[in-house]
Amino acid sequence: MNHTTDMSPDAFRLLCRSGSFTGPTAGAASPYIQANMMILPKEDAFDFLLFCQRNPKPCPLVEVLDPGQVEPHCAPGGDIRTDLPGYRVFEHGRLVREVNDIREYWRDDFVTFLIGCSFSFEHALMAGGIPLRHVEQQRNVAMYKTNIPCRTAGRFGGNMVVSMRPVKSGDVARAVEISGRFPQVHGAPVHIGHPELIGIRDLSQPEFGDAVAIHDDELPVFWACGVTPQYVAELSRTPFCITHSPGKMFVTDLLNQ
Amino acid sequence: MNHTTDMSPDAFRLLCRSGSFTGPTAGAASPYIQANMMILPKEDAFDFLLFCQRNPKPCPLVEVLDPGQVEPHCAPGGDIRTDLPGYRVFEHGRLVREVNDIREYWRDDFVTFLIGCSFSFEHALMAGGIPLRHVEQQRNVAMYKTNIPCRTAGRFGGNMVVSMRPVKSGDVARAVEISGRFPQVHGAPVHIGHPELIGIRDLSQPEFGDAVAIHDDELPVFWACGVTPQYVAELSRTPFCITHSPGKMFVTDLLNQ
Repeated sequence: MNHTTDMSPDAFRLLCRSGSFTGPTAGAASPYIQANMMILPKEDAFDFLLFCQRNPKPCPLVEVLDPGQVEPHCAPGGDIRTDLPGYRVFEHGRLVREVNDIREYWRDDFVTFLIGCSFSFEHALMAGGIPLRHVEQQRNVAMYKTNIPCRTAGRFGGNMVVSMRPVKSGDVARAVEISGRFPQVHGAPVHIGHPELIGIRDLSQPEFGDAVAIHDDELPVFWACGVTPQYVAELSRTPFCITHSPGKMFVTDLLNQ
Repeated sequence: MNHTTDMSPDAFRLLCRSGSFTGPTAGAASPYIQANMMILPKEDAFDFLLFCQRNPKPCPLVEVLDPGQVEPHCAPGGDIRTDLPGYRVFEHGRLVREVNDIREYWRDDFVTFLIGCSFSFEHALMAGGIPLRHVEQQRNVAMYKTNIPCRTAGRFGGNMVVSMRPVKSGDVARAVEISGRFPQVHGAPVHIGHPELIGIRDLSQPEFGDAVAIHDDELPVFWACGVTPQYVAELSRTPFCITHSPGKMFVTDLLNQ
């Protein structure tokens, strides 16, 4: 997929729009912020916006579009109905379809939420000399359900989902400092070192993504994860919502830092 | 009013609730965060929450309550219907009543927004050796309408209101650094030095609050002001809203920093 790394964000979005690119966006248009996406009818949008406001670590808002708006401020010329490589359509919390284009579903009362994703601070961690095993092994990051409750807002509530990256003990403090500089994308870790204390029984069995080994000189470090809002929307059995497909984000024109 | 300075926030709120205190809250329960307040029916709450999300400098959210909720998370035991020294009731953008208690108006669909106020960073500025003329002279801070547009959300839009404090030229950089540490209460200044460039014609004629002199060795420094959301709600002619009376804030249990 690496021919997309040097693309401009708008060129990459057009590639998705034409249907020529349907893969994961990791590494695409590399210095630009990518975002998780959630689309809800306006009647659910206040509760969801309030959920994000109350839970900024798992749900850092990049932008919220007006009802019916399809061109984000953060991506002039873009169209959130066509410019992601894949979408998931949910009814009453059940995945009913996976598609490459949502124009046929679009309604004027749909509100789009763009939510920060960890690709931004992963760049900074690697640039700071902290290697990331899942990137080296070209896997998805490992993600786990926890017992850390989110603050509820209306129908939206549930426990936080976290991503885990093994970090050498001597690098942990620096990993905290570097990621803490990115509050718009989950910020500093929510837990370090004892998975059982946040309700994770077995690191080899992530609920989402792929497991990676943890070496003897490393600690597991856990960050709030942008899968949380999607998981919470499923739990709520909200009548209708559309999200990005896992790993297939919206590429914005905003630079990482 | 200075007997209230050493009070605990809940003792001060009870004093307001009993009707014994109806003055401005400057200096009350001194180390605790005070908040501007806006109450709107749920049908307008999404647009207003979106306005705050899009304009965090003038509208830094401290907390948004659930529809019908009267006890904030940031003030256990508190009641936003009785614990402010004064309230203003607006209909279609017109001030129709000023009261000390809003229980008779309360409805289950009312959503309360608590918005950061500049008292928090003023403490820090003074602690940092930067004197504030309006505090020394026991006046209200001077506030001005500008030509700086806020980002619109639904019915809510308009230009930013700013507060102005004269700062010695040699202290301006430090005033920026200190206030920049308080993003939850307006953060760093939005403009320094040339009022005419942001649409202010005459510093001696503030739209709200009281004018103060600017000495030859000082610059006028402008911060985004929490009066902005109230001004924007008036402009929108929203059918019904309730705000705090000017200078009569809600005192929370949260410490300044």
